[in-house]
Amino acid sequence: MKIADRLHQAGIILPEPPLPVANYIPSAIAGNLLFISGQLCLDNGTLHQRHIGKVGGSVSTDLGIEAAKFCAINLLAQARAALGDLERIQRCVRLGGFINAQAGFTALPPIMNGASDLMVAILGEAGKHTRTTVGVAELPMGAAVEIEAIFEVR
Amino acid sequence: MKIADRLHQAGIILPEPPLPVANYIPSAIAGNLLFISGQLCLDNGTLHQRHIGKVGGSVSTDLGIEAAKFCAINLLAQARAALGDLERIQRCVRLGGFINAQAGFTALPPIMNGASDLMVAILGEAGKHTRTTVGVAELPMGAAVEIEAIFEVR
Amino acid sequence: MKIADRLHQAGIILPEPPLPVANYIPSAIAGNLLFISGQLCLDNGTLHQRHIGKVGGSVSTDLGIEAAKFCAINLLAQARAALGDLERIQRCVRLGGFINAQAGFTALPPIMNGASDLMVAILGEAGKHTRTTVGVAELPMGAAVEIEAIFEVR
Repeated sequence: MKIADRLHQAGIILPEPPLPVANYIPSAIAGNLLFISGQLCLDNGTLHQRHIGKVGGSVSTDLGIEAAKFCAINLLAQARAALGDLERIQRCVRLGGFINAQAGFTALPPIMNGASDLMVAILGEAGKHTRTTVGVAELPMGAAVEIEAIFEVR
Repeated sequence: MKIADRLHQAGIILPEPPLPVANYIPSAIAGNLLFISGQLCLDNGTLHQRHIGKVGGSVSTDLGIEAAKFCAINLLAQARAALGDLERIQRCVRLGGFINAQAGFTALPPIMNGASDLMVAILGEAGKHTRTTVGVAELPMGAAVEIEAIFEVR
Repeated sequence: MKIADRLHQAGIILPEPPLPVANYIPSAIAGNLLFISGQLCLDNGTLHQRHIGKVGGSVSTDLGIEAAKFCAINLLAQARAALGDLERIQRCVRLGGFINAQAGFTALPPIMNGASDLMVAILGEAGKHTRTTVGVAELPMGAAVEIEAIFEVR
């Protein structure tokens, strides 16, 4: 199945990729690796109030999962902007997940699954990735989740 | 000296590599780089109570060092599972270390040395790596240490 | 314009690169990628008192920006030591920025710009990079900022 079909099936329309909020670029290709800058949990460019704050605190588990999913959608939007066509993705190699965690909240992997599940749903086998998930003290704009990625491309 | 001999000399038997705790894979090869997912300080699959909590708080420096060593053992176990033979490792390129740090605990590099020393002890010259060590707010399952790796392979 | 000229124009003399504070190496080349270990905000080897502590707390925004700039200078010093000549840099691919953030301080991207702006000022187009910025709980020696880098080299 083609990626475009999987996006359609999942009801996802990739947004215009968010512009960097400072002096950097959203993606860079070195050899066969595509690096994507850390993406916040923006919904089509907007950081909703419900995705601001600490997961396990003011942000519920379900909303944390939703936030991680938005990060993944933005990563794919950036990849498409960089590559022209998502079919050029050979595989998602690595996701680096940073959860804005309430003190004592250690159930971080289920939150990060919001991104991992989306990546596999859209890219299929090519979406299976390594990942690192940690709980951080603060994130830009108070976002609940930030995720960066490395893709292998052709 | 061969890696198997160094493991024997150090009295280390690599465990079955821990299974990912969620929807991701433990390792991925892209070109000549082997990416390993963040590994928690599991001892042969078990997260001991003594390795849960904040380093510099309920987890002492010595236990933090031990935790970092277990992360490194799991990284090598994952590398062996991915490569079939650790001799295929050209070098350890990078370790990313995340210490579950008590507020005010800044002696993070000696903790991370638990992993770095093990890597050099087992891989020799090929074990000398770049690294980044930071203190994070929370880690999955309350683990004291999590470490990810990139290896160059042949 | 050559990198040496841009350094001169910016009034920057690259220091002797800081030695690793523990059992690791400052840089490693794998294929066409140069990995640099996380660099603290040392000024020619010295961690000033004004760059110790929490950005948004005891460390002001301006000093946080200065700290990030010192990290970038150290990254370039390490790159020069690894490559012999900074002109071998094809591009800065990625910066990973860790800000020692006061609780509630979310204006992290402007802090990280201290590094990003320096990288672009010195490397020009080749200095435009992807990046990830997060606020962490603690950093080695209480440093305000730590930054790691990946460069593509020729």
